[in-house]
Amino acid sequence: MIATNGRTPEPIIGILSGMGPHAGLDLAHKILDLTPVRQDQDHLPVTVVSYPHWIPDRSTFLFDPSQPTPVPALVAIAKRLEAAGATVVGMPCNTAHAPAIFDAIKEQLRTDGHHLRMVHMIQEAVDYTKHLLPSLRRIGVLGSLAVFRLGLYRSRIEQAGLEAVMVDEEMQVNKVNRTIFDPDFGIKAHAAPVTEQARRYLIEAIQHLRTKGADAIFLGCTEFPLAVPEPYFEGIPLIDPTLVLARALIRETYPDRVAQADALMNQ
Amino acid sequence: MIATNGRTPEPIIGILSGMGPHAGLDLAHKILDLTPVRQDQDHLPVTVVSYPHWIPDRSTFLFDPSQPTPVPALVAIAKRLEAAGATVVGMPCNTAHAPAIFDAIKEQLRTDGHHLRMVHMIQEAVDYTKHLLPSLRRIGVLGSLAVFRLGLYRSRIEQAGLEAVMVDEEMQVNKVNRTIFDPDFGIKAHAAPVTEQARRYLIEAIQHLRTKGADAIFLGCTEFPLAVPEPYFEGIPLIDPTLVLARALIRETYPDRVAQADALMNQ
Repeated sequence: MIATNGRTPEPIIGILSGMGPHAGLDLAHKILDLTPVRQDQDHLPVTVVSYPHWIPDRSTFLFDPSQPTPVPALVAIAKRLEAAGATVVGMPCNTAHAPAIFDAIKEQLRTDGHHLRMVHMIQEAVDYTKHLLPSLRRIGVLGSLAVFRLGLYRSRIEQAGLEAVMVDEEMQVNKVNRTIFDPDFGIKAHAAPVTEQARRYLIEAIQHLRTKGADAIFLGCTEFPLAVPEPYFEGIPLIDPTLVLARALIRETYPDRVAQADALMNQ
Repeated sequence: MIATNGRTPEPIIGILSGMGPHAGLDLAHKILDLTPVRQDQDHLPVTVVSYPHWIPDRSTFLFDPSQPTPVPALVAIAKRLEAAGATVVGMPCNTAHAPAIFDAIKEQLRTDGHHLRMVHMIQEAVDYTKHLLPSLRRIGVLGSLAVFRLGLYRSRIEQAGLEAVMVDEEMQVNKVNRTIFDPDFGIKAHAAPVTEQARRYLIEAIQHLRTKGADAIFLGCTEFPLAVPEPYFEGIPLIDPTLVLARALIRETYPDRVAQADALMNQ
């Protein structure tokens, strides 16, 4: 059963994990959820490499480039994924999609002669949402302070001809960002189970974006769907980029399985 | 932050997954659950390789050795884990711990000059239980038909000076084994969520083992804890070998984190 054709390696999904590790497992689960099977052998091949201790904090580097860069570690992990067999890689961390990190990883892999394909989660989320919900005009964004300040979603939403609705700065700093990083109640330190305060702050931010006119909301930090797993909140679609990334990784490796995934996502 | 000491590779946990993939993710989650942190960088390094389509069914091979053997695929996956950096490997599949598979993998890796250490989940489960619950005398076993017929738990329980309590053959064949493999309600085809029938059959089997005198019960198939996650059922401890394997992998890589894991396991 082992593929032996030396030229074209069989498609294998790689998950560049560790930012945090729960988000990597959440992505792996979502791939399983979107590809139902009758027996073990029907599941898609997936490899996960989660070496969090190698990876300096992404936000710290983005706000102060004199701080340690995560790029060499992320390139090294991508190469480990390739060594394990991965051909297409997804990175379940929105902040790491800042051009200073994501583009730098791609460039270094190219320079080093590697052929791994990296799927861009944020672009996939915007494209999928525009396709699925063509009547949408104003999309709210929840994310880390780096995602907010660098406009990682805003720029791509606007390129798609839509309007981005952002949280007010005070709420971004004091509530949304702390929901990720606070050592006492933040999701990175308390992912299973998530704290009540993390969920409460996120719901407050969702209601705030709704008041500002958002028709839908991107949960633009891979920690957020752990706290707000429901697909709708008070009638507003909550779009989970990790789920869209799962679909994109299936499409890039086993395109014949996408129709089934789409049917499940639109249930 | 990347370890550069060429001689001794840094300890990295490998999960040889795919039998099925949910069990591999369950093990990864249990490692996270047993090692709480304040920030991403404090999590242990873990790599998961889940290539289910490579691996012929373990039970089919064990009952009829003229059928395809899973050993070459499992050896190949172990080598991929090593290529990704793993130094110690756990295999969350009880049936694959049959000597005709587990010992053959170890032997092939040794012959090929690889230094990966393989942790034996069943031996760990028996040793840990005897240590933790020294007053136990009779341990019930739930597992696949192969685990039952080959006595994978029974032999090690008896070697430890304890008595193994087995399910009656009729219930083993018609209920316990189908809870794993049945395409309509079995856990391999319906892992998230598990079906009500799968849980009902397992609870019936647990009550049956209790009637036969079991003081505790091994959930000796990695699918079972997905259906019966509680640590006790009607006062009987349900021992989850996947959780014990998580602890053993932590002990073999980062022994300074075991005391914390033990405190959490005994809560």
